[in-house]
Order: sequence, then C-alpha cells, then structure tokens
Amino acid sequence: MKSLVRENIKNLNAYKVDAPQYEIIVNANESPYDFPMILKRQFCDEICNTDLNRYPEACFPELLKELSDYTGVPEEGIICGSGSDEVIAMINQSFVNAGDVIVSHSPSFAMYDIWATISDARHIRVEDLPEHLPDIDTMISKACENNAKLVYLCNPNNPTGHTFSREDILKILDAVPSLVILDEAYIEFFGESGVDLLTQYPKLLILRTLSKAFGLAGIRCGYALGNKEIIDILYKVKGPYNLNVLTQKLAVIALKNRASILRNLEIVKAEREKAMAFLEELNAFKIYPSGSNFIYFESPQAEEIYEALLKNNILIKYFKEVDRQPGSIRFSLGKPQDNQKILAIIKEVVYNGA
Amino acid sequence: MKSLVRENIKNLNAYKVDAPQYEIIVNANESPYDFPMILKRQFCDEICNTDLNRYPEACFPELLKELSDYTGVPEEGIICGSGSDEVIAMINQSFVNAGDVIVSHSPSFAMYDIWATISDARHIRVEDLPEHLPDIDTMISKACENNAKLVYLCNPNNPTGHTFSREDILKILDAVPSLVILDEAYIEFFGESGVDLLTQYPKLLILRTLSKAFGLAGIRCGYALGNKEIIDILYKVKGPYNLNVLTQKLAVIALKNRASILRNLEIVKAEREKAMAFLEELNAFKIYPSGSNFIYFESPQAEEIYEALLKNNILIKYFKEVDRQPGSIRFSLGKPQDNQKILAIIKEVVYNGA
Repeated sequence: MKSLVRENIKNLNAYKVDAPQYEIIVNANESPYDFPMILKRQFCDEICNTDLNRYPEACFPELLKELSDYTGVPEEGIICGSGSDEVIAMINQSFVNAGDVIVSHSPSFAMYDIWATISDARHIRVEDLPEHLPDIDTMISKACENNAKLVYLCNPNNPTGHTFSREDILKILDAVPSLVILDEAYIEFFGESGVDLLTQYPKLLILRTLSKAFGLAGIRCGYALGNKEIIDILYKVKGPYNLNVLTQKLAVIALKNRASILRNLEIVKAEREKAMAFLEELNAFKIYPSGSNFIYFESPQAEEIYEALLKNNILIKYFKEVDRQPGSIRFSLGKPQDNQKILAIIKEVVYNGA
Repeated sequence: MKSLVRENIKNLNAYKVDAPQYEIIVNANESPYDFPMILKRQFCDEICNTDLNRYPEACFPELLKELSDYTGVPEEGIICGSGSDEVIAMINQSFVNAGDVIVSHSPSFAMYDIWATISDARHIRVEDLPEHLPDIDTMISKACENNAKLVYLCNPNNPTGHTFSREDILKILDAVPSLVILDEAYIEFFGESGVDLLTQYPKLLILRTLSKAFGLAGIRCGYALGNKEIIDILYKVKGPYNLNVLTQKLAVIALKNRASILRNLEIVKAEREKAMAFLEELNAFKIYPSGSNFIYFESPQAEEIYEALLKNNILIKYFKEVDRQPGSIRFSLGKPQDNQKILAIIKEVVYNGA
C-alpha cells in the first residue's frame, strides 16, 4: 500500500476528533446561537415536500439567487461548496500544479496549508511582524519572485483577529501576479468587505460561509464570489451534485430570514468589546485587536488558563508555545453568561494561579 | 486568468444542468420511491433537537456504526463522503500523481474520467469486447505495463448493467499492482458484493452509496469499505467536516430502517425482468443483461425513442452514436405504471416510427 500513496500525503495527519462534550464550547469560532426553532420548522415542512430520492440541483439556483441578493454579486459570479473548505479544494484543483507556490501570512487558517500539501505545492508562510501585522511587503515579494498561483488573505484573520486595511489589500492586488483569495469567513463581524473590488480586480476571489455569522456550521455551506471568468473555472472541477438538497433548502431559508438571524451579530460584537476591555484591564497578556467573533491573546499562562477552563467544563482553543511564539489562546464569544464565566476563570488564574 | 489555470482543467466541461421538469424522470438511475414520510418526520424531530450552529461530527461515529452493521465491515474500515463522487476525489488526492495511469473499461461511470483529468493522470479506457463484456486481459496487461495506480470495476456497471463474475474480479485482484476500486453503487440490485474479499485483498476498496437502493440521492452520502490501512490514508485528505449534520442524521435513520426501505428492491427487480422480457419480445434492439436498476440497449432508433419519450414528458438517458458505437438508451426502472407508459411508447416507435 505504502508504495501506492503519494509522497506529499504521507505526513498529513487525519483530522479525527471526537465532538467535544463540554458545557461551554468556544474553541471553533461557532455562533453560540442555534438556528431559530421557527425556521427549523419551516425547513422540516419543506423537507416533507421534497423528493429526497432525486439528486439535488447541480447548480443551486435558488441559493444563488439569495446569495446574490445578500452580497450584491451577480449569480454568475457565485459558486457554493460544502463549507469554504470545499471551495478551497476547488481552487487548488483548478489552479495549483505540483511545485506551484502559494503565499499566505502566518499564522492563518490551517486549510490553506493542508490543501497546499494535497496539491504538492510549496506554501510560503510569511511570518507576521510584531503585533501580528502581516508582512505585506515580504508577501508581495515572495509572490512575485515565485510567480505564486495563490495569495491568501484571511480577513479578519483566523486565529489572530487581524483585519486588513483597504490600502494593504489594494497594494497586494496591484502587485502580485497571483489569484488573490480574500477569505471573508468572519466578515460580518468586521463589516468592511472587499466585494466592491471585484469589478476592478478579475483575479480577486472572495470566500464566505454560513458557518459563522449565520450560525450554521452544521450544514456546511460555503461560497465564493468572483468574476464570471474565474467562477466558471471553479465550476469545471465542482462535483456534479456537491451540495445536498438539505443544505440547499436550509441555506435558502437562512438567507431569506437574515435580518432576524444577523441581529445576533450586535450581541456578539458588544460581548467582544466587553471581554476585550475586561482582559485589557487584567494587564496580564498580549491581546490583539479582533475584527471577528473571537479573541486571541498570548500569555506564558496560556496552558494554565486552558487547563483551568477545561476543569470547569469549558473548551477553548490553545496553541502551544512553538519556537519563538509564546503559547496563545483563542476563544470565540459565547452567550453573555458564558463569557462572564470564562472571564472570571481567566481572572482567577491570573491572580491566584490555576 | 487563463495563464493561471492548470492545463489539464481547461478542456473540462462544467456540469451545469437544470433540474429536469418532466412527469417521469428515469435518466439518472434514481429510485422512484421517496424516503417514507414517517421517517422524514423522525428526521425533522431530530433536527429540531440538533444544534445546527455546531460543526458536524468530523468522523460521523453513529453513521459508521450503522454502516458497519449493514455491511459487516468494521468501523475502522469505513469512510464517508458527500456521495461516492467525493470518495473518488479522496482516492485521487491520496494516490494519483500527475502522469500516473488509471485503468477502467469503457463505457463506465463518467466520474472516473473526470477525476483522472483533474489529477492530470493518464486514463486508459479499455473498450469492451462484444456483448459489452469488459476486456479483462487487456485491462490487466495495461495496468501491469503502466504500473497503474487505480483500476476501476463498476459492478454492476453504469451504463451497461454488466456484472463481473467472481472469477474475473479475482483474476484482476491477483494480477495488478494497483488499487482495485470495486464500485458497488448498484450492488443491492445485484446481490453479489465483493465485501468478503476485503480480508484477503488489502488493495481492494469498495465504493457504495445511499443514492440508489436507499433512494437518497438528494442527501449525498457515499462511503468506501476497505482495510484500515487504506481507509486511514483517505482520512488524511478528507475535509475536517466533509459530511454535514443533516445528511449524517438522515443517513443513520435510513440505515436503521433499512428493512422497510430495501423492500422496494424486489419491486424494482421484478419490474426490470418484466421490462426486459417486453423489450426482448419487440426483437428490435440489442439489449444487455442488467444487474442494476436500469436497462441499457442499443438501437439505430435510439434518438427517435428519446425524442418520442421527451414529447410525452418522460426523460431518459440517450447516448449519441459515436465512432463505431451505435446510439443507446439507458433508463432506470420507475414505478410500475411509469414503466408501462415508457414501454408502450418505445413499442409504438418501433412499430410505427416516432
């Protein structure tokens, strides 16, 4: 068997995790708010009237209509996948040959690297400058020198929460010969989308998802926005029926009812500011500004904090100390009472140890 | 943009079809029987109690348990995807480098070729012998000469309905250096699975789906059965949350209730025999024996038949005459009254023209 496996795949680690069983789960940047019951019931009514024995719509026309309405991008400039993960897969399958170069800053979203490995590409991860500011100039020079196929900008960035200025995005778009992928998974928590740039920049592709602000991580619905020319290329490698009918139906309901669903954004953003102020006041960590639904900070006590929260049945994301990088914590904002609990425990560790 | 696209992708055609609006749809080998309403309601109850804001189980433990129970393969030997299409994608991503060779007979399932193209592999399609018997000896010699990575056997075969004898399967398994993929999408309509061969043949991988016999094409749930070593490799390239929670929940319900769902198999098989006898009696086509839920025949009147059925609001699959191949028809067995209608129209064309 080993002789048959591709070399580049051998060292990949399978993503095998058990679903966490904790009282408070804030490790995966999910929304703490479930899909409203009234809309679940509407979904159920539709499913009772849907022929599940039939293949789903290959090109999800109803969903495209709603996404176009939501984003302002014409339907021909949109493609959907099973999470933005699948869209990233399609981008790699369409554009990246073995040996091609992909540029991102680091740290950023893990799937860029996993897909670079599957594509047998060379992933140049440009280390952030102090304050976790992406090193734009080095990213540009690396992309140009290596004729990079893809440049990823995660905006806001996972896990640091950093947001790119319009100036930086334009600087990159104007300089690199690559496809620029602006990953806006968390954009609704920030607000400054790059969608208006699509008309000027044919090599810009924007990734989005219903997993975060829409609170629908369970249904796996991601999408890409771009010019028709680039979207048409992604359709070539898209599986014929990549998005099942259940997800299509539910996503349409979510988008049609977005006014009520996205009301939660304000709660999350207010919680983020409160939590940030609380943590700043402790004066114990290096906290980074966040344009997202999570908070990221570095601390020599990171592991201690992680353990203390675990003991209290709370799961956050802990990044081990590596090289010169200190240990760090990322936790998404939960419901207000959950955040209070988390912050109280963090404070306790800071003042009294675990 | 064109300079960034991979060469091998350029000539791929996007699969963009509108969902067909016909009274009788028998072009896609779907089951004519929708998922039972009582089970849809059970699904709805579960969804009302499921947190859709949470990511789905990464490794679908409940589904593995049921699939293991159904197939007799241990859970560690099973992986699921969004249709077997996604499993084929994972196989290619794990094993196929650019320039590698993939062998199948021809005609067979279109996705083998699409994924060979995406992988930039060389797909050797060995033309069937007369009677659409796969040319086993040539397949073996091509696989051996070229050190093929993959050999596909679709059993029963789509579109010809051909079933491989145990002897032929063993002959291939014993001779080739490749991963042998036994695609059993339609196996329930035939009955002679190769699952028992898994213990002896570590390079055997079996593909299955809930799209056909289980009548759940809409939910996109496929799976692979194999030895742990090979399944573990596929897990390396599997997207972290590739199977959404809705599909997982519904698939579990289907498998738990398979005794009642699979009762439809007997109706479909009886309809197949009746339709086959009817068509044989017309004595107008070259009809091929089918181990599946569809019938395949060749006829100089194929296009005429296709058009006559379309006019009657019935959609079947028509394969144009190419090279030395005559035009042909594939239609899946619908409900008994639908089959009667289809057969009557075919008879009419044969006797009186369109």
